[in-house]
Amino acid sequence: MSTKKDYLKETIQHIDIKKHNVIPLVESFKDMAFQARNLYRAAKYYDMMLEDKNCSVILCLAGSLFSAGLKNVVVDMVRNNMVDAIVSTGAIIVDQDFFEGLGFKHYIGTQWVNDNELRDLMIDRIYDTYIDEEDLRICDETVGKICDTLEKRPYSSREFIWEMGKYLDKHGKNKESVVYEAYKNNVPIFVPAFSDCSAGFGFVHHQWHNPDKHVSLDSAKDFLELTKIKLEAFETGIFMIGGGVPKNFTQDVVVACDVLEKEVPMHKYAIQITVADERDGALSGSTLKEASSWGKVDTTYEQMVYAEATIAMPLVTGYAYHKGNWKNRKKREFAKMFL
Amino acid sequence: MSTKKDYLKETIQHIDIKKHNVIPLVESFKDMAFQARNLYRAAKYYDMMLEDKNCSVILCLAGSLFSAGLKNVVVDMVRNNMVDAIVSTGAIIVDQDFFEGLGFKHYIGTQWVNDNELRDLMIDRIYDTYIDEEDLRICDETVGKICDTLEKRPYSSREFIWEMGKYLDKHGKNKESVVYEAYKNNVPIFVPAFSDCSAGFGFVHHQWHNPDKHVSLDSAKDFLELTKIKLEAFETGIFMIGGGVPKNFTQDVVVACDVLEKEVPMHKYAIQITVADERDGALSGSTLKEASSWGKVDTTYEQMVYAEATIAMPLVTGYAYHKGNWKNRKKREFAKMFL
Amino acid sequence: MSTKKDYLKETIQHIDIKKHNVIPLVESFKDMAFQARNLYRAAKYYDMMLEDKNCSVILCLAGSLFSAGLKNVVVDMVRNNMVDAIVSTGAIIVDQDFFEGLGFKHYIGTQWVNDNELRDLMIDRIYDTYIDEEDLRICDETVGKICDTLEKRPYSSREFIWEMGKYLDKHGKNKESVVYEAYKNNVPIFVPAFSDCSAGFGFVHHQWHNPDKHVSLDSAKDFLELTKIKLEAFETGIFMIGGGVPKNFTQDVVVACDVLEKEVPMHKYAIQITVADERDGALSGSTLKEASSWGKVDTTYEQMVYAEATIAMPLVTGYAYHKGNWKNRKKREFAKMFL
Amino acid sequence: MSTKKDYLKETIQHIDIKKHNVIPLVESFKDMAFQARNLYRAAKYYDMMLEDKNCSVILCLAGSLFSAGLKNVVVDMVRNNMVDAIVSTGAIIVDQDFFEGLGFKHYIGTQWVNDNELRDLMIDRIYDTYIDEEDLRICDETVGKICDTLEKRPYSSREFIWEMGKYLDKHGKNKESVVYEAYKNNVPIFVPAFSDCSAGFGFVHHQWHNPDKHVSLDSAKDFLELTKIKLEAFETGIFMIGGGVPKNFTQDVVVACDVLEKEVPMHKYAIQITVADERDGALSGSTLKEASSWGKVDTTYEQMVYAEATIAMPLVTGYAYHKGNWKNRKKREFAKMFL
Repeated sequence: MSTKKDYLKETIQHIDIKKHNVIPLVESFKDMAFQARNLYRAAKYYDMMLEDKNCSVILCLAGSLFSAGLKNVVVDMVRNNMVDAIVSTGAIIVDQDFFEGLGFKHYIGTQWVNDNELRDLMIDRIYDTYIDEEDLRICDETVGKICDTLEKRPYSSREFIWEMGKYLDKHGKNKESVVYEAYKNNVPIFVPAFSDCSAGFGFVHHQWHNPDKHVSLDSAKDFLELTKIKLEAFETGIFMIGGGVPKNFTQDVVVACDVLEKEVPMHKYAIQITVADERDGALSGSTLKEASSWGKVDTTYEQMVYAEATIAMPLVTGYAYHKGNWKNRKKREFAKMFL
Repeated sequence: MSTKKDYLKETIQHIDIKKHNVIPLVESFKDMAFQARNLYRAAKYYDMMLEDKNCSVILCLAGSLFSAGLKNVVVDMVRNNMVDAIVSTGAIIVDQDFFEGLGFKHYIGTQWVNDNELRDLMIDRIYDTYIDEEDLRICDETVGKICDTLEKRPYSSREFIWEMGKYLDKHGKNKESVVYEAYKNNVPIFVPAFSDCSAGFGFVHHQWHNPDKHVSLDSAKDFLELTKIKLEAFETGIFMIGGGVPKNFTQDVVVACDVLEKEVPMHKYAIQITVADERDGALSGSTLKEASSWGKVDTTYEQMVYAEATIAMPLVTGYAYHKGNWKNRKKREFAKMFL
Repeated sequence: MSTKKDYLKETIQHIDIKKHNVIPLVESFKDMAFQARNLYRAAKYYDMMLEDKNCSVILCLAGSLFSAGLKNVVVDMVRNNMVDAIVSTGAIIVDQDFFEGLGFKHYIGTQWVNDNELRDLMIDRIYDTYIDEEDLRICDETVGKICDTLEKRPYSSREFIWEMGKYLDKHGKNKESVVYEAYKNNVPIFVPAFSDCSAGFGFVHHQWHNPDKHVSLDSAKDFLELTKIKLEAFETGIFMIGGGVPKNFTQDVVVACDVLEKEVPMHKYAIQITVADERDGALSGSTLKEASSWGKVDTTYEQMVYAEATIAMPLVTGYAYHKGNWKNRKKREFAKMFL
Repeated sequence: MSTKKDYLKETIQHIDIKKHNVIPLVESFKDMAFQARNLYRAAKYYDMMLEDKNCSVILCLAGSLFSAGLKNVVVDMVRNNMVDAIVSTGAIIVDQDFFEGLGFKHYIGTQWVNDNELRDLMIDRIYDTYIDEEDLRICDETVGKICDTLEKRPYSSREFIWEMGKYLDKHGKNKESVVYEAYKNNVPIFVPAFSDCSAGFGFVHHQWHNPDKHVSLDSAKDFLELTKIKLEAFETGIFMIGGGVPKNFTQDVVVACDVLEKEVPMHKYAIQITVADERDGALSGSTLKEASSWGKVDTTYEQMVYAEATIAMPLVTGYAYHKGNWKNRKKREFAKMFL
């Protein structure tokens, strides 16, 4: 029988968009058709967001992106002022990013494997990638420990993730972390379903053992804070990878401002990379034109790209990186609004 | 130019599974291939969950299911003791179910429409379905009003939805509501990303106007409560429509029990109806075999069905309804654990 | 190690639409949304084709439909005058239908299997279905033998398949065959890519051993014959399962008539059941509205259904069967045009 | 109302893989996950095919590839000895390649358009691309004229396409044509469903007006000829874009050799770029492992990439082009076998 070491040999390596000037390639997609042309447009709109002095950029992340080698794409976006706020699923931020910040790794695997054998070896699988569950348990516990040190009150996920950044600043073993970089650069990170990830295990442990007085997670506060950012930012562009809660939550802040009787424009730019289909009527694959009927997204600069993120995200982001319009942007540092 | 009335004419009618004995049809799928055979197996496993005296059933809902005519399928599941706990997206429970409980309707529309015109008329579109946004704003406000009446402390989504059920009991205009029926039958409903829906607007309004002392939403408490239900239930089966947060959250409770050093079995039965693809590595389309590597789902009775829910869910649920094994189940009434 | 018998145990059973009155179920889909509503519309349009005295019906088949248990659906359509011409892939007509006509069977299998082991045992796999390759070789050879008996000249696939029907009439072991029933009922069957299937092996064998004088397959003649049928039929409706060559070929006959300077109407009704996506620009998933730009399909009664065929085809066809409008149709017997 | 000129303004520009050294980008995909990693592997296997002295390469094309800007990718593959035989759908070779060889163009369009208006203007739409139908009719007629000049007998598609190349050599207006380059370089092109495209209209016209003595299309001869090439080539690799008839036909030649009692190896290398899903059991999305159960494809070097072709094909092909292993290949010139 195989041992754990037989499975966990080669580690995932994150792509470095700084090394690949994809501008000529992406521009050659401009006059083609189908998804090449769509990808070009999405890249152009992202670059336009960065060039537009008045536009703040919100990045929405869903899917197992960081375990798949896309973590440093976002690290570079944060470092280079290419994003002003992040809304994500919990798995990306905690199980994958904070996890690597603690010094752990993801491993190259395969989907053609016996999952029962993996379970016996405490190896977790994400399609063709492996995780050492013993590492992941340490990640869970670290969240629990952070809870134990905090004042016992409701927190937005942004507040808590800021504490995780502070933790990595002191104890982290890998500075290539979005949680850490966002902490250093005052880029707020929101995870509206924050208990739905490795962090959830830490919180359950904390609340179970502290039934009377404990840290709680206020997802309404998340929504209020992101709404305040929209009020402060006014003009916004959204860059979505995948759909799910981050897509819906971020689109909704336009309506939330309206509920507070504050007038703000719809998201001026909106791009989404996704393989989700619109024909089941679900949110993830719903078109940005549909979002426009809800008053959330303007239709002048919107583009969906039907492509899997590991291929498309480096092209879209790399295009904007090498265009260099981020060099002239002022830093928003929205996290300072809440300090 | 068209008026709102031109668009909002015909209302969505919910399918009534009680009227269609689909057992012979679904059994004829047994010896076919591809998704017909998979659908038969999923139906059989759901029926086995209901027949298994020791098995508690958790229903996971994602996608625009109730606006599409599937609301009464779940109303009947709750009424007839075919489900013991529900984990859902917010849109289904608030924007669609509670919304109809307040007396509002969804309308038959089309995706071949000018969304800018819809926006001007305050009509929101979900693929081929329309909503009167003025109705939806009343739904938002009602959530805000419920907030205002409550003690100012953190709530799990389950607690808050219980309050919504109580509200419908007094003020509701349509008893065909899952929120209402679950309230009457002590079936707990969890929405782990509860601010990510119409309710979010109510909470933002409430917290904005009550900055110091307000209701907050504790999603960690959600996770703790569902974990307690797993501990109480011990043996469980999960019936998932779509993926997203409800799928992940519900699978995770097995690990949460382990984190609390309590031994419970993996989910013994697991079925999922989805069109999501596994090849992008994201959670929604990830196989139940993959979940088994994480120690969440047993592989003996698991079946994914690649089908859109409006067609497949009435067949799977109708099969189990007409089989009648729910008649012999004891009621769990897990909501009573928290009263 | 397993033997062939271990794998080839349970046989695929074809669904019998006559036994399931799905009218109430399908009508309950009418006022729902998404694919349920689309499926209802497709079923209604198919029924309208049969009710319309002037409309001839062309059925287009692609995908591994008959090995999956849908063969008898089409047998019943032919027997009950619900279809006037068939355009198909070769695999369905030869490898699956003629194959079963010779007395062979398809077996229930699984996709979770070692394909190298299957190959060693001479078992061919179609997703979750098995075929005994030794049976299939006999099917190939039978085609070769039919070739040997025919006059050496170019044949349309329709002509050749008519010979296959005649062969089954004499030597067949299973009367539940579309090739046989179509032969008896003078329903022409076209396979425009006829060498691309089990028949191809028979032809290669025949031509290799008869290099100078042999049967050849004239796919241009196929197109000419179907064009003649369109000229004769004038008003037409098309019912497509899957896309590929049958979809394109059948849509194209409208243009072919125009090329011959004969005026005929576009296909008046058009429905398609498919899971193909439109976003890659390929024909299989292209919308029927797009086909309308080419002057092939009218847009008044067109409906695509995004669903896998094993579930959707019995519902659409069963609806029309139980509606009974086929009882009042005159038989077209287009095959007689070529006798 | 718009005129034709309003729609047909910007032309599709074909990507030039020679200009983009994508090796570093594609190699950075190697240690990522999901489709990036799969794309790297496919690129590597294609390069291995070219490096392997004994391996002949067959390219299979399906989908609207050349109208989308991928034509010159294949022109360069033919010019630079990166492919030894091509199997394609008719639309790519006739409606798109030969069409451009005659001097016509494809135009940038959009799917958000009124197709009835396009039809009135004689503009054909392929998703987001437009064609002037008057140009296309000239293409149809040219095929008809070529028929009229030929000896009246059955032709394989390869023979006929060779005549089309000869025609372009004399009368062509754009040398960037695969039909032309393949003619010059003795690379055979097969279109097994040759009547299913613009050529079909030419053939119908020819046969209608020459009922007694005419050119016919022998698709069995296609299969025999490709089988002879496999016998001559012995070791082969297949590079598939999309599925459909080209995929099946090319995989089948291994079995055809066996039917002739000639021993040849399975296809040693096999890669496929497709968005087709395997869960409907159809050929296009069926895995290469499944093909292995049929004895068609070896599983040592096989890789499917789930990606749309306009993005993925330039990366896979560009990688192999810039690797340069094609420089050391001997030319097969299989077309000479039939001269």
